[in-house]
Amino acid sequence: MPKKNSQSKPLANSNVLAMHAYTPGEQPEGTGWVKLNTNENPYPPSPKVVAALKKEIGKEGSRLRLYPNPASKALRDALAKHHGVSAKWILVGNGSDDILNLLMRVFAGPHRAAGMTTPSYSLYPVLAALQGCHLVEVPFANNFALDVAGIARCGASIFFLTSPNAPSGVGFTTAQIAALAQKFPGILVVDEAYAPFARENAAALAKKFPRLVVTRTFSKAYSLAGMRVGYALAHPEIIELLDRARDSYNLDRLAQAAALAAIEDPDYYQKTMARVVKTREAFLKKVRRLGWFAHPSQANFVLVEPATARGETGPAVADALFKYLKGRKILVRYFGKHPLTHAALRVTIGTDSEMAALAAALDSWLKTAPPR
Amino acid sequence: MPKKNSQSKPLANSNVLAMHAYTPGEQPEGTGWVKLNTNENPYPPSPKVVAALKKEIGKEGSRLRLYPNPASKALRDALAKHHGVSAKWILVGNGSDDILNLLMRVFAGPHRAAGMTTPSYSLYPVLAALQGCHLVEVPFANNFALDVAGIARCGASIFFLTSPNAPSGVGFTTAQIAALAQKFPGILVVDEAYAPFARENAAALAKKFPRLVVTRTFSKAYSLAGMRVGYALAHPEIIELLDRARDSYNLDRLAQAAALAAIEDPDYYQKTMARVVKTREAFLKKVRRLGWFAHPSQANFVLVEPATARGETGPAVADALFKYLKGRKILVRYFGKHPLTHAALRVTIGTDSEMAALAAALDSWLKTAPPR
Repeated sequence: MPKKNSQSKPLANSNVLAMHAYTPGEQPEGTGWVKLNTNENPYPPSPKVVAALKKEIGKEGSRLRLYPNPASKALRDALAKHHGVSAKWILVGNGSDDILNLLMRVFAGPHRAAGMTTPSYSLYPVLAALQGCHLVEVPFANNFALDVAGIARCGASIFFLTSPNAPSGVGFTTAQIAALAQKFPGILVVDEAYAPFARENAAALAKKFPRLVVTRTFSKAYSLAGMRVGYALAHPEIIELLDRARDSYNLDRLAQAAALAAIEDPDYYQKTMARVVKTREAFLKKVRRLGWFAHPSQANFVLVEPATARGETGPAVADALFKYLKGRKILVRYFGKHPLTHAALRVTIGTDSEMAALAAALDSWLKTAPPR
Repeated sequence: MPKKNSQSKPLANSNVLAMHAYTPGEQPEGTGWVKLNTNENPYPPSPKVVAALKKEIGKEGSRLRLYPNPASKALRDALAKHHGVSAKWILVGNGSDDILNLLMRVFAGPHRAAGMTTPSYSLYPVLAALQGCHLVEVPFANNFALDVAGIARCGASIFFLTSPNAPSGVGFTTAQIAALAQKFPGILVVDEAYAPFARENAAALAKKFPRLVVTRTFSKAYSLAGMRVGYALAHPEIIELLDRARDSYNLDRLAQAAALAAIEDPDYYQKTMARVVKTREAFLKKVRRLGWFAHPSQANFVLVEPATARGETGPAVADALFKYLKGRKILVRYFGKHPLTHAALRVTIGTDSEMAALAAALDSWLKTAPPR
């Protein structure tokens, strides 16, 4: 072992020594799974994505030996056009997680707290710990309504709001977000991973409020979770700061090509998203017919509180159903640690046939396997 | 504009407000360029890479809708096998730049300085500024020899050594690196982006010294600069800390597939690298025949000091030749800011025909365009 230096410093930064890594959703091994646990889109990406990838690869993959465009120029230009802004308003990242990490790194720190609603995306606390900043949690009430006043006075320098919210699926109106942007004195990040499935979004507000950052992803609406592309829409002053912290080649050639082809095929995606929304509403009807409570959803998932045939609800019931479904190779998500979610399951909206398989499993669980 | 908060804090962290982004090498627009400026491999990746990409994309791109394996498991396993270690010794990143960034974030900070030799990879100072840590620079002498004693006593908590060095191309022996690892009391990062082109490397030392981290990239030796894949080889205690800071889906599906196919085709790459080394030695002979000084190179580039027909050297000569070549669509790299590089050009080794085009341009420059 090499000698320690004279001050006998710890091996690494204390915040890293104290933190835990983010735990991603389960990726089941093998085939035959109905995978409704990580909010992936059940439909494949646009055929134009496949064509664009094959074109970029070419016969011999010769282009892959060359660095990608460091600014993801063509993709940024297309996203700028999509939102009716110039490219200076757009930053592209290796998934929106990359963007969230950059936001934390640029705007939060030991004397600049970050904030989030609780429960929400469990990556935010990991990023705050990694940045060594205090994290202010603004708790949701039972109905997952937006606490504008609570957030406005929470004291954070940057606040992360998932809208539509996860894991509730509850959507916030543009008017609510605008009211929050008016009152919150720091950087307001509206994490719109699920916004394409919602009635409203905050994209227009990013042009109006220079401290409001909208983040989006290609993982959900654009069926490209496997390609890791996200972006931020914000005032150029914010984008320029994030760009300093960004890795200069954060998106590979194929990720850029895939996302560009996707954004340029809006017709395909509008159809796909409409199908997901239709299936979501049908599933909500189904669970309500069972007499179960489910939050209204503006996302591509539903948070539903299962009840046994005897009407029992609670963590034991949710956990039992989770395990029952998993035993039948149907994977949903169970967040057992928080009182607002521990009696519920989060179900990603799959294809109609996947949801039919789930519905049949729910029926058979109710008949044959009352818990406890 | 929203109101500022009561303390009237600056918009962002002060280190970010003060820093500049990394400047990547020029990516020329249009075709017809002989591109010898960013140390890309002139040969395409293995045909197995193209096949693996096509397989992962499939007919409809259906797999792209699903998140990638968060641990890049198959790739890590293959890299572990390649180095004769278990997967706990390997961390995979979105380019080795991602790994360097994680190293800085985990091991450097306001009270933990980072160190580097000067001149060297210009990303290190950017990453240090982003982390808000002091950067200790240990200057090279004219011959770019390794200053073991100077580094050992520099006081940094983490030191970044590019080996073989860039932009000099000078290689360090394993014995030199071992001596440094023995004496340096912090984390020693041996950035081996160019090691596959060298006679020696430090991979075996990572198993012996628990504070030595070897980083590698698929960008140079494996002809995959466009795919952004790098990795670290280090003691599991180091890897586990880096893994906490790593984005949980830092590599997309196609990057994982491409790198895996590459590492599994060693024959192809050994041939490719041997060709590059052979061309490098021929180019060194050529410039020495011209009477120009060039550092011996263990990398896929050469740092060469041009002289006019009248024997003049210096920054004006190097700059004039850089511009002359660029005018003929031959792009090399000129680092005009540092006294150890400002009289030289860094030339990436291309194909034999690219190097012949360069050689012809050098001859014609000597004949027709004496500077000043």
